[in-house]
Amino acid sequence: MAQKVLIHGATGETGGDILDGLMADGSFEIAALVRPQSLQKPATKSLKSRGVKVVVSDLVNQDVEEIADLLAGYDTVISAVATTAQLDQLKLVDAAAKAGIKRFIPCGFTSVSPPGGVMTLIRTEKEKIHERIWYHHLPYTIIDSGTWYQISFPSLPSGKVDYAFMGDGNTIVADGNAPNLMVDKRDIGRLTARIIKDNRTLNKRVFLHADVLTQNEIWAIMERKSGEKIEAKHATHDELIAKMHTARAACTKSPSDPRLRFAAISAEYMVCKYVRQDNNPQNARYLGYIDTRELYPDFEPKTFSAFVDELLAGQAKKLYRDKFEFMQKKST
Amino acid sequence: MAQKVLIHGATGETGGDILDGLMADGSFEIAALVRPQSLQKPATKSLKSRGVKVVVSDLVNQDVEEIADLLAGYDTVISAVATTAQLDQLKLVDAAAKAGIKRFIPCGFTSVSPPGGVMTLIRTEKEKIHERIWYHHLPYTIIDSGTWYQISFPSLPSGKVDYAFMGDGNTIVADGNAPNLMVDKRDIGRLTARIIKDNRTLNKRVFLHADVLTQNEIWAIMERKSGEKIEAKHATHDELIAKMHTARAACTKSPSDPRLRFAAISAEYMVCKYVRQDNNPQNARYLGYIDTRELYPDFEPKTFSAFVDELLAGQAKKLYRDKFEFMQKKST
Repeated sequence: MAQKVLIHGATGETGGDILDGLMADGSFEIAALVRPQSLQKPATKSLKSRGVKVVVSDLVNQDVEEIADLLAGYDTVISAVATTAQLDQLKLVDAAAKAGIKRFIPCGFTSVSPPGGVMTLIRTEKEKIHERIWYHHLPYTIIDSGTWYQISFPSLPSGKVDYAFMGDGNTIVADGNAPNLMVDKRDIGRLTARIIKDNRTLNKRVFLHADVLTQNEIWAIMERKSGEKIEAKHATHDELIAKMHTARAACTKSPSDPRLRFAAISAEYMVCKYVRQDNNPQNARYLGYIDTRELYPDFEPKTFSAFVDELLAGQAKKLYRDKFEFMQKKST
Repeated sequence: MAQKVLIHGATGETGGDILDGLMADGSFEIAALVRPQSLQKPATKSLKSRGVKVVVSDLVNQDVEEIADLLAGYDTVISAVATTAQLDQLKLVDAAAKAGIKRFIPCGFTSVSPPGGVMTLIRTEKEKIHERIWYHHLPYTIIDSGTWYQISFPSLPSGKVDYAFMGDGNTIVADGNAPNLMVDKRDIGRLTARIIKDNRTLNKRVFLHADVLTQNEIWAIMERKSGEKIEAKHATHDELIAKMHTARAACTKSPSDPRLRFAAISAEYMVCKYVRQDNNPQNARYLGYIDTRELYPDFEPKTFSAFVDELLAGQAKKLYRDKFEFMQKKST
């Protein structure tokens, strides 16, 4: 019998990749949890046209019993929601426990970092969800991933990759040699399909990645493939830390401003990846994660080099296209 | 070369067992971190007479650099401190990271429960210490244990075991069949000696126990060995939960009252052990712990039965003798 999977956030940036990965796998019976107000959106209609069952639920206004009734009969619930909607999962966890869900995948899907005040905007609320899972003894898998290729390349002098560029510029941190877990975001879906069929990952933290790359290595690949010379800005560790504190303070002052929130998240990521160097395989193991490269040695992840080929051919996807226009670099 | 171990809290109830276990092992070079104001106490003098090096440090008033200088050269730091002194460990962790300590054992040594609001008085502050450890990428082992035999036996009508009794009476919860991890507290020391020599436990959570026993099994052993019939009180799950909420509220209102604090801790333990049933091997594994029974199959833990023999022979130790007189049942 096919494993029945319900995805919360299937039309989002990560949820969409997960849906694609599960559909490509072909062995799942897939449904998507959709808010009543999203029923008429093109993204929801597109789900239906792809054969995904739409389950309508309003996590904010429905009570746990009602949500549990909707969840009953599913084996697995996967949550992939916006950073601002993390706490909506509390009720979803309560309902999943009540419905006897066999595996709950909370919204992880971020780079490796420790709980407790390092990634205050990205991880702190996710930890609240983990605690609720453990409170209920609910079977789970926490999945985190390397940084996406899609947000990790520098722009080129020609402007050729600006169509897909997002980020805060071509900044090399310190000597540019901090190693970071990296992955093509589309592989998150392909690997999630493996993970939820695997008993070894039950009640575990799992990290997935394709490569471990430094900024210098990324730059070198981009220069070699494009034939362009990239002008880099430089930042020291202290400058990044100062920038993070400033960005956090601004975000705290105006928490509903998405631009300030994004700036603070970016600044925390920079410190985490390049100053603290949390996002690497050694630290992932230290924090109790198991490695999909070891679990699935036959899995061939998309390489950064192959992604750059797509990018230079104009075939990469612009992320968060509709949501955060301010995040996109305008072509000049 | 002998592993150099520094114990913080070596004169305490758990720290004393750890010191005994490490000394019995014989392979360690042991020192104890002692506050200046405790230097003249009999317990400190006793440390010296047993050949333990005393390192004087004032965690409250010294800065991290000074403490790090004292810690330099030790391989392992073990912390076992009172529930009210948990946050003193923050500075100790900072100093251990600065001194390059190879393994830090934070004050765990409590029964298995999830982080996040179940054991608010026992575990919540311990989690802050874990987060600080991970913040520093400091190598660590978190050790938790089964409930001590020493606090888990009912009193007898004859009054024979009152000399060592502590707790809130002979209450059987629900049907009395909730299984709980249990251990002789002296084995915590013997097993800690194994754990800190074992690379498999580095950067892991470990739980130790000897038996898994229900209240009914404990009662049966006590009745069989004593020849006495034990009168039990009974409590339902709902009664225990209500009692916990009342005790927590009283403790929150008067946080410095040790009697109210002890009552609230006890009430949380009761709910955790008998209602939620967190303290068992399945849940320990679910929460990511590894089992010393599997790591050390040759280790022969003291059995509950053997402990009861000691207890009935008048040879058990009265715990927290000097500290909490209100916790001891007066012989009648």
